[in-house]
Amino acid sequence: MFKFNFKNPTKIIFGEGCIKDIAAEIDKDHRILITYGGGSIKSNGVLDQVKAALNGYTLFEFSGIEPNPSYETLMKAVELVRLEKIDYLLAVGGGSVIDGTKFIAAAVDFQGEPWDLLAKQAAVKSSLPFGTVLTLPATGSEMNSGAVVTRRSLQTKLPFSSPLLYPQFSVLDPTTTYSLPARQISNGVVDAFVHTVEQYLTYPVNAKVQDRFAEGLLLTLIEEGPVALQDPQNYDVRANIMWCATLALNGLIGAGVPQDWATHMIGHELTAIYGLDHAQTLAVVLPSVLTVKKEQKAAKLLQYAERVWGIVNGEDGQRIDQAIEKTRLFFERMQVKTRLSDYGIKDDSIDKVVAQLEQHSMVRLGEKKNITPAVSREILKLSL
Amino acid sequence: MFKFNFKNPTKIIFGEGCIKDIAAEIDKDHRILITYGGGSIKSNGVLDQVKAALNGYTLFEFSGIEPNPSYETLMKAVELVRLEKIDYLLAVGGGSVIDGTKFIAAAVDFQGEPWDLLAKQAAVKSSLPFGTVLTLPATGSEMNSGAVVTRRSLQTKLPFSSPLLYPQFSVLDPTTTYSLPARQISNGVVDAFVHTVEQYLTYPVNAKVQDRFAEGLLLTLIEEGPVALQDPQNYDVRANIMWCATLALNGLIGAGVPQDWATHMIGHELTAIYGLDHAQTLAVVLPSVLTVKKEQKAAKLLQYAERVWGIVNGEDGQRIDQAIEKTRLFFERMQVKTRLSDYGIKDDSIDKVVAQLEQHSMVRLGEKKNITPAVSREILKLSL
Repeated sequence: MFKFNFKNPTKIIFGEGCIKDIAAEIDKDHRILITYGGGSIKSNGVLDQVKAALNGYTLFEFSGIEPNPSYETLMKAVELVRLEKIDYLLAVGGGSVIDGTKFIAAAVDFQGEPWDLLAKQAAVKSSLPFGTVLTLPATGSEMNSGAVVTRRSLQTKLPFSSPLLYPQFSVLDPTTTYSLPARQISNGVVDAFVHTVEQYLTYPVNAKVQDRFAEGLLLTLIEEGPVALQDPQNYDVRANIMWCATLALNGLIGAGVPQDWATHMIGHELTAIYGLDHAQTLAVVLPSVLTVKKEQKAAKLLQYAERVWGIVNGEDGQRIDQAIEKTRLFFERMQVKTRLSDYGIKDDSIDKVVAQLEQHSMVRLGEKKNITPAVSREILKLSL
Repeated sequence: MFKFNFKNPTKIIFGEGCIKDIAAEIDKDHRILITYGGGSIKSNGVLDQVKAALNGYTLFEFSGIEPNPSYETLMKAVELVRLEKIDYLLAVGGGSVIDGTKFIAAAVDFQGEPWDLLAKQAAVKSSLPFGTVLTLPATGSEMNSGAVVTRRSLQTKLPFSSPLLYPQFSVLDPTTTYSLPARQISNGVVDAFVHTVEQYLTYPVNAKVQDRFAEGLLLTLIEEGPVALQDPQNYDVRANIMWCATLALNGLIGAGVPQDWATHMIGHELTAIYGLDHAQTLAVVLPSVLTVKKEQKAAKLLQYAERVWGIVNGEDGQRIDQAIEKTRLFFERMQVKTRLSDYGIKDDSIDKVVAQLEQHSMVRLGEKKNITPAVSREILKLSL
């Protein structure tokens, strides 16, 4: 096991009806900006629940944070916060709203051009406090300190993080997910699955607990994901998926182990250029990354084959190939297509994506830092 | 899944050589009391490492915190803290030292008789900040907010807890465990195992992640425990056990699920009256609790039999009995005896233990609150 530091101060408030508990988490004198995306939290009653819980507070609203939240939109919220002397943010939505809110929190008092937080990885020196009400299990942003922001004008999607950017609390009420479109549940399950794999399918360092926990998340997502699509109001299924997605990226399963993240970095470019959903890019890229790197990842792929998919017969190579194929079929079963061609993207895309990776210095990806642009090209070819 | 709140703000600093990192966690102007037990941290060099790391700080020492830390001893430390205006505590040792340090932290500014923190479960309104350097993986106290303190004169061992009693940080360096006597490793593995079981072997609430995580801890302890005895300087094995013990009782696997704790409560009385090691009491009591409550716990026992012990053949009752027997044999393999008679305790003990349980209001134990004194009597009889 590698050395590690692990600290995660976010308070999770989990269960049906818990939105009403948020007032206990925020001092009465705060001026609160509620941030959200489109109208779904209005139509499903979540915004009303939030406002009812915060009756008596000074509230502002900022809507229109889009999937893959854009710098341009978020900077409008930063202006509003400065103008109204807002001192607390409450993100109500999924990972995009929460990521965007982290950016707002970090940008408000940032000295200089806030884009530097992303483009130059400038240090976050202060942040507004914020909480979240999660309505879409997927990214894990509700219990971590990272965010991804897109600048549309530059076709650029970049991550940043800071220990100052953990939510103070996050409410996870599985019933808020009942009204989600199937596509968002599909995407969320694939996203959580791939987050787990990025921290698990690397090379063994004898970190047995982290392995078992990662496998536990994968097994649960495989069991519950398809049921969530068939039976949208099954509370336990939604609860299990929600808790999986949070634990897939709260730092725990990645503590003390190698991490890959090549799939995410290549996927980000596909979203930036072609607008694919984040999870769609992951479903396309992951099977190819595993295939291209199957020798380097062999030991963990064999463990994954056995413990997650129950594959115990056949030669090593066969079992590995079966496990990768099972992974692809799981994504397809979750109704997320796994080929670039499924999204109308052809082989002329490869040059563009590789050029973007180079421009963003994504030239040594993966747990061994050996996914060069040439290897990314190979991965993309295999994904056509 | 039940509703739950989960927040754990302790920073874990994990790995060989990490003791040197503690200065970064404590402001320079603190007056620090280093608390510890006997001489083992002197002979194995841990105390020297701590002092070297805190070169330049104002340091005090308080030694002599015993296994099952005693109120009488701890109150002497409280006096020292008040006298010297100490404002930070650093526990260096195992669960007893850390538990004792939590009591000191809570007692220093307590208004009234600090015994009320235990006997009357008086609320902790303030606490000194503290960190820990863990040298004995077992209790999980390094990443939770609970403690157990014994008052020898009353033959009473009682738990207390408060959200104010999380360590600010805990250093987990597996090499500090190399010099532990085998008995302490044995006890630690059994303790972590039973902590996990108390939160797992109850009744199903369809909390799939919590189940998988609990099973992951149990599987790891079963794999690594015996190796830790045979190969004391195997870093990865010690690291896996250390991380298991922390995660077994940091609130995570118990979030949203029923919990039992009858084994612990009955075991505390055995320690208070007969001085058995904590883990010895657990190894004696747990198999009997599982046996007496096997109908109530049947669904989870069958899951445990299959997923943890690989038992898939036979009638339900047979598989359950086999799983309980495997549990007992694992404790014996860890060199912890599982019968009261192994410790020279005879059937005349039962009245004493039951009387103590009644005196301490431990009259409705277990996840269904149906382990009355009569049932405790049955459990103890089966443990002879």
